[in-house]
Amino acid sequence: MTDLPISAELIAESNARELAALEDDYASLGRKLERTGIDIEAIKSRIASFSVAVPSWGAGRGGTRFAKFPIPGEPTSIHEKLEDCAVIQQLSRVTPRVSPHFPWDKVSDYRGLREEAASLGLSFDAVNSNTFQDQANQAHSYATGSLSSTIEATRMQAIEHNIECIEIGRQLGSKELTVWVGDGTNFPGQQDLARSLDRYLEAAAEVYTALPEDWRMLLEHKMFEPAFYSTVISDWGSSILAAQELGPKAKCLVDLGHHAPNVNIEQIVARLHRFGKLGGFHFNDSKYGDDDLDSGSINPHQLFLVFNELIEAELNPREGFNPSYMIDQSHNVTDPIESMLSSAEAITQCFAKALLVDREALHFAQEANDTMMAFQALRRAYNTDVAPIVSQARLEAGGAVDVLRTYRESRYRSRKSQERKAVGLGAGIV
Amino acid sequence: MTDLPISAELIAESNARELAALEDDYASLGRKLERTGIDIEAIKSRIASFSVAVPSWGAGRGGTRFAKFPIPGEPTSIHEKLEDCAVIQQLSRVTPRVSPHFPWDKVSDYRGLREEAASLGLSFDAVNSNTFQDQANQAHSYATGSLSSTIEATRMQAIEHNIECIEIGRQLGSKELTVWVGDGTNFPGQQDLARSLDRYLEAAAEVYTALPEDWRMLLEHKMFEPAFYSTVISDWGSSILAAQELGPKAKCLVDLGHHAPNVNIEQIVARLHRFGKLGGFHFNDSKYGDDDLDSGSINPHQLFLVFNELIEAELNPREGFNPSYMIDQSHNVTDPIESMLSSAEAITQCFAKALLVDREALHFAQEANDTMMAFQALRRAYNTDVAPIVSQARLEAGGAVDVLRTYRESRYRSRKSQERKAVGLGAGIV
Amino acid sequence: MTDLPISAELIAESNARELAALEDDYASLGRKLERTGIDIEAIKSRIASFSVAVPSWGAGRGGTRFAKFPIPGEPTSIHEKLEDCAVIQQLSRVTPRVSPHFPWDKVSDYRGLREEAASLGLSFDAVNSNTFQDQANQAHSYATGSLSSTIEATRMQAIEHNIECIEIGRQLGSKELTVWVGDGTNFPGQQDLARSLDRYLEAAAEVYTALPEDWRMLLEHKMFEPAFYSTVISDWGSSILAAQELGPKAKCLVDLGHHAPNVNIEQIVARLHRFGKLGGFHFNDSKYGDDDLDSGSINPHQLFLVFNELIEAELNPREGFNPSYMIDQSHNVTDPIESMLSSAEAITQCFAKALLVDREALHFAQEANDTMMAFQALRRAYNTDVAPIVSQARLEAGGAVDVLRTYRESRYRSRKSQERKAVGLGAGIV
Amino acid sequence: MTDLPISAELIAESNARELAALEDDYASLGRKLERTGIDIEAIKSRIASFSVAVPSWGAGRGGTRFAKFPIPGEPTSIHEKLEDCAVIQQLSRVTPRVSPHFPWDKVSDYRGLREEAASLGLSFDAVNSNTFQDQANQAHSYATGSLSSTIEATRMQAIEHNIECIEIGRQLGSKELTVWVGDGTNFPGQQDLARSLDRYLEAAAEVYTALPEDWRMLLEHKMFEPAFYSTVISDWGSSILAAQELGPKAKCLVDLGHHAPNVNIEQIVARLHRFGKLGGFHFNDSKYGDDDLDSGSINPHQLFLVFNELIEAELNPREGFNPSYMIDQSHNVTDPIESMLSSAEAITQCFAKALLVDREALHFAQEANDTMMAFQALRRAYNTDVAPIVSQARLEAGGAVDVLRTYRESRYRSRKSQERKAVGLGAGIV
Repeated sequence: MTDLPISAELIAESNARELAALEDDYASLGRKLERTGIDIEAIKSRIASFSVAVPSWGAGRGGTRFAKFPIPGEPTSIHEKLEDCAVIQQLSRVTPRVSPHFPWDKVSDYRGLREEAASLGLSFDAVNSNTFQDQANQAHSYATGSLSSTIEATRMQAIEHNIECIEIGRQLGSKELTVWVGDGTNFPGQQDLARSLDRYLEAAAEVYTALPEDWRMLLEHKMFEPAFYSTVISDWGSSILAAQELGPKAKCLVDLGHHAPNVNIEQIVARLHRFGKLGGFHFNDSKYGDDDLDSGSINPHQLFLVFNELIEAELNPREGFNPSYMIDQSHNVTDPIESMLSSAEAITQCFAKALLVDREALHFAQEANDTMMAFQALRRAYNTDVAPIVSQARLEAGGAVDVLRTYRESRYRSRKSQERKAVGLGAGIV
Repeated sequence: MTDLPISAELIAESNARELAALEDDYASLGRKLERTGIDIEAIKSRIASFSVAVPSWGAGRGGTRFAKFPIPGEPTSIHEKLEDCAVIQQLSRVTPRVSPHFPWDKVSDYRGLREEAASLGLSFDAVNSNTFQDQANQAHSYATGSLSSTIEATRMQAIEHNIECIEIGRQLGSKELTVWVGDGTNFPGQQDLARSLDRYLEAAAEVYTALPEDWRMLLEHKMFEPAFYSTVISDWGSSILAAQELGPKAKCLVDLGHHAPNVNIEQIVARLHRFGKLGGFHFNDSKYGDDDLDSGSINPHQLFLVFNELIEAELNPREGFNPSYMIDQSHNVTDPIESMLSSAEAITQCFAKALLVDREALHFAQEANDTMMAFQALRRAYNTDVAPIVSQARLEAGGAVDVLRTYRESRYRSRKSQERKAVGLGAGIV
Repeated sequence: MTDLPISAELIAESNARELAALEDDYASLGRKLERTGIDIEAIKSRIASFSVAVPSWGAGRGGTRFAKFPIPGEPTSIHEKLEDCAVIQQLSRVTPRVSPHFPWDKVSDYRGLREEAASLGLSFDAVNSNTFQDQANQAHSYATGSLSSTIEATRMQAIEHNIECIEIGRQLGSKELTVWVGDGTNFPGQQDLARSLDRYLEAAAEVYTALPEDWRMLLEHKMFEPAFYSTVISDWGSSILAAQELGPKAKCLVDLGHHAPNVNIEQIVARLHRFGKLGGFHFNDSKYGDDDLDSGSINPHQLFLVFNELIEAELNPREGFNPSYMIDQSHNVTDPIESMLSSAEAITQCFAKALLVDREALHFAQEANDTMMAFQALRRAYNTDVAPIVSQARLEAGGAVDVLRTYRESRYRSRKSQERKAVGLGAGIV
Repeated sequence: MTDLPISAELIAESNARELAALEDDYASLGRKLERTGIDIEAIKSRIASFSVAVPSWGAGRGGTRFAKFPIPGEPTSIHEKLEDCAVIQQLSRVTPRVSPHFPWDKVSDYRGLREEAASLGLSFDAVNSNTFQDQANQAHSYATGSLSSTIEATRMQAIEHNIECIEIGRQLGSKELTVWVGDGTNFPGQQDLARSLDRYLEAAAEVYTALPEDWRMLLEHKMFEPAFYSTVISDWGSSILAAQELGPKAKCLVDLGHHAPNVNIEQIVARLHRFGKLGGFHFNDSKYGDDDLDSGSINPHQLFLVFNELIEAELNPREGFNPSYMIDQSHNVTDPIESMLSSAEAITQCFAKALLVDREALHFAQEANDTMMAFQALRRAYNTDVAPIVSQARLEAGGAVDVLRTYRESRYRSRKSQERKAVGLGAGIV
């Protein structure tokens, strides 16, 4: 893999400076865990097989409707984005897959793109369709909806775009189509709330029909934005009912920022699993709405509780339990590579903490209604500093012990700012 | 019906003073509606057949966990509560049914109670079970749950109580059982989120089995309170999936204050109807949580939009569409009779406004994506002052034109404060 | 005023078709009000002196970070925007002032622009500065803040821009500077929460110093967006404390969509007035966040309650009570002219309803703790259909009785779509 | 101190079993911290001087308006509550003060009560007045308000009660009066929003005047409950403006559950400090409203961020910075002693984590707008497992290393359930 963007020597040198400390911390944590009957090597082994996809669009700076502030060296093509994703994977060793978005990532040769990715140590994850924006020379506007549009030609165009995404995905080696539509309204009365869903379901069924046998269709709900009064697939209730109607290959995708205030997201995870429809996650964090902040930066405990449900789900599998994990963030104020490195680590740490929960003690306390001990079973795991295990697993996989410091030492972004063309001013996400 | 609590003469005198104004307003509104092709008599006729139940417990002052402030003349038995409900029905003529709550309303002779109600012009609506409180001499506590308890004996007790409620309801002439459980947790980890639902579903199925053929079981979800971390049936998604599992007689009940902040409740109504599970409503209003404020007092426009969906649903019926309407409020700072009189009027007015929507114009604009005209179709109806139609319908049905003034003139509460025993200090809802 | 964009004949013809109905409705309402001791002519006279400014940028379609969907005939310069605002004023007769935004509305000759506006029947309202976006060729980026930036040169640039806005405003005849900064953070720790405010206050004081004696500086707070973890002036508490530090010319501006969920905005209005700092409003509506929906479209009752507080404030004036009213909406799915026509009417109607409140009855009931009658005093006014008064006042001022129909009959937008250049695809607000 | 409720031998035995593990963990953490230049002994020394008060009422089970589920052995008098608080202090060594509530904790001999507390190793913290409930034989009801009541006699009674609380507090050795009023409304129009505040301010000034020179008056705001439309002191803005009007001895108290959804509480802490009015905290946690859950149980990261602001405030002191810390929770589903032991530990751990933040690195990154490194400075500290330092400090102070296990081994509650009278069924908080 001679194409990797960061020099192996630099990683090795960076790691060398961390080894003594890591060894001490790992050994200390090992003794601590051993006292409670946990084998740190077994945990490390589980972590070594964990991974989360990164979104191609996440490699660029995001923005709001007010402004986007680009940084020098930002990627402006799928090729540059793949290169940045390769940096993230090379250092973190938990992000081997990239999720593309079309038409943003359109190229003429998808088999070539797949090889390009492979040479960077990457493969492709779920394909994302885009019917929330109009593209230049597009026949029909999505101004008033896409899959749920009142206009048949618009619905057909949206269906065809999704089917094209599936076709591209086949060439890229993907097995999933993620469908998020911004369809909705800004005024009471603007659309018939019932008929909009009927149209959506009918159109989504056309896409579903085009899905290969071994594919899944992930439905992503969102409470609001871009629509500010109603959204067709606004909550997990709408999402799961739609997935039920579509069929067994349709599953629900949970984005952590797409819910009403105060909602208990980990219970939604448990509910979706209970009814056989948990498809996957878009990881990020939020304080107010779909803020798309770095995973775990605002409420790391919630992220831990989500993983706690996932471990429970794994122990009580329903048919087809195989959730997809992806980071989906808008990096408005940081270097996107740094944010994804930091987020991948935060996500992996929450997974590691969930693995540490003494489930026997937890279940015993739950059955006995010993509330305090049930809570403490979770809290003990959450309070554990799992950085040594996660770092050790990364080291053994060839990554960097201190991902951020190693990245900065590589001066990757500075080099790219010399090579790449500048991004203009504007607003929005692309 | 010589038992009615308010003298017919007093009502007649009170009405006499309003007649001239009402006649003028009704005629003016009739001309205005006629100009848009609406026959005011047809609207009045629809209103004349509208009704909403009142809850027996709503006749007493409610309270918070901090305090309850009783008023002189409050009812302290189901007999006194029925008398108060009779006042509401006598004046408003839209609340002919009372929804009882057990064990609060337990008596030794239910056939006698039914006759007592009939003599007051009342019949019984949905029966409410209570497994969120412990009663003196109860074998098993609901401290850690009821239908979802980890303790089999507790679940059995809760099932049996619900079945007893059905049995009582049969004697009272009811056809519905409303099941709300406060089951949930205050700590992450306290209960297994998946197994709790399984236990709930299993226990609820036992109750469902005991339901007579022509009965319905209404599942009421609630986001939080009394549980503050998770609630077993916390949202409409959980509710509808539970109703699907239970069977066709299980439907979902929407309480307007039981949702997450900002949630689009009217869309939930449309979704429940779309999937054949809209069972009924608990009308009230809220600004923060389950505030149980007077219907329409905070957001009357939302109440109108809910009725707009109900009219749409009626025009596009699904199997079994027959929603039950009930007021469910906590009257902490008003005379409960006044609040229910005012609320019944507010609810009826929203129903009337929804009837006035020019649906042809609305649907045409929706299909044409003429957002502004679709919105205006609703807004024109909402802006109409429908008081004359509602008052006229009430007058013709034998009620009072000005319900609040007539009630005050009756000095009913003052008389009851002489007759009835005082309520002690305390907190909470009963 | 021969420059007005809509032909007077067309307005007259349109009005002619409405006159009989309006006359009947106005007379009916007059009789109804007279029965409660209200003189409809006095109310009409108050309405005749009411006005609300429109924002220049509101004349174009708005968008979200995901997309903007332009319409044919959208304005692309301040000159075209003024023309559109003239249509709104010509038909509604309540929007005689336009609020400009710089640098968006920059021209070389401001006195000429002022004359241009005057020839269209318009003058200029509060000037808005913009330090939340970077402009091409700008020396210092606002990527990490403007008035609160850690970088002195950036703060100086932001101060100078605000002072330039004052200078432009002087030439335009404005008397107010509205300052909204998007400054804030997306990560815990990103900035020092205390020092950020200190820097903001120091920089704002520089702007304040440059304010002419008879000007006011309106501070606009906002909970979130574009910053998603913290915002320097995030709530009314921060806003009023800043205004106190700056001095008597500094006041607080309330945008109806800039608050936390569930917040009682009308009480904030009362609080700001109580402490002498109520400066003005940005009217719009919201369901979720800063949705910038049409005023009163989601929660018209809240808008009425705000006006109720304004009438109370007027009756209990504090020094300097003189609130500025402006519409501030993002018209993502409608013709902006139609939205502003409809919104101006909704705002005026809420003002009219607040005028109808029987304040003697209200205050008497409040003092007597007669909760129900206090509530009914507001509710009676709110339920009144005030369209006839507002339409009659508009007719007498030379406007259109049915503003939307008249606008459509004018085919103004269609004509402009022939004349004006098309707007490209993109995202965001400009 | 022979009166302490838990045997010293039992504590010693329990600790003996933990010593080896603690020693290893403490040494490991010491090495880890040393590598980043932090002296673990210095941190331990800071922790040793940290303390937080417990509320007398927190020793009993709390409840909701729906129900309260008592546990055997609950305290029913201030004497029993003190004994339970002594257990908490004996084991945790960070809760040496008890905050009393009147009239709940009324006794005939306060000097005797103070001695009783002292013999249990306790002293008294802020005195809490209660004007949100009516007491038997109370002359005037608080049904329609207390300090803000429209009724002068009611206001006078509320003022006198507060002054009596000060007098009791003097005898108990307290230096603070905490004033929380539930005053507010359930209906728009119910009270005049401006005059209510005027009355509150006037009455509070009377209380303020009675305050001894070295006392402080802590104003506690709350968004809603028991009032569900408006609350007189609903937010920090109202609270700080009231405190400004009252004078320098008036400060603001922050309860973590009394805010609107999504609000950034740590920024409020920074704001209150910036304007010299940060008085103290009521620690608890919440997911939905004023849930009064165990501190840090829902969002431990937020609790850490609050302490981070407190450390910053300490480094940048304003006049009179001396915040009071108290736990204020409703223990509905746990043994209150266990919850307060667990909460005191969670609070102390957040304080410890905030001490570990590398402030030089943080401030450098903040000034340089190096967002990622500023965030990481906080995150590194948050991720550290500080249990060894907190446990070691507790051990050295004479407490239990594992507070919950030691408490359970003591069988304290079981013994009390033999001795104490049972609590009856009911609802609410007392």
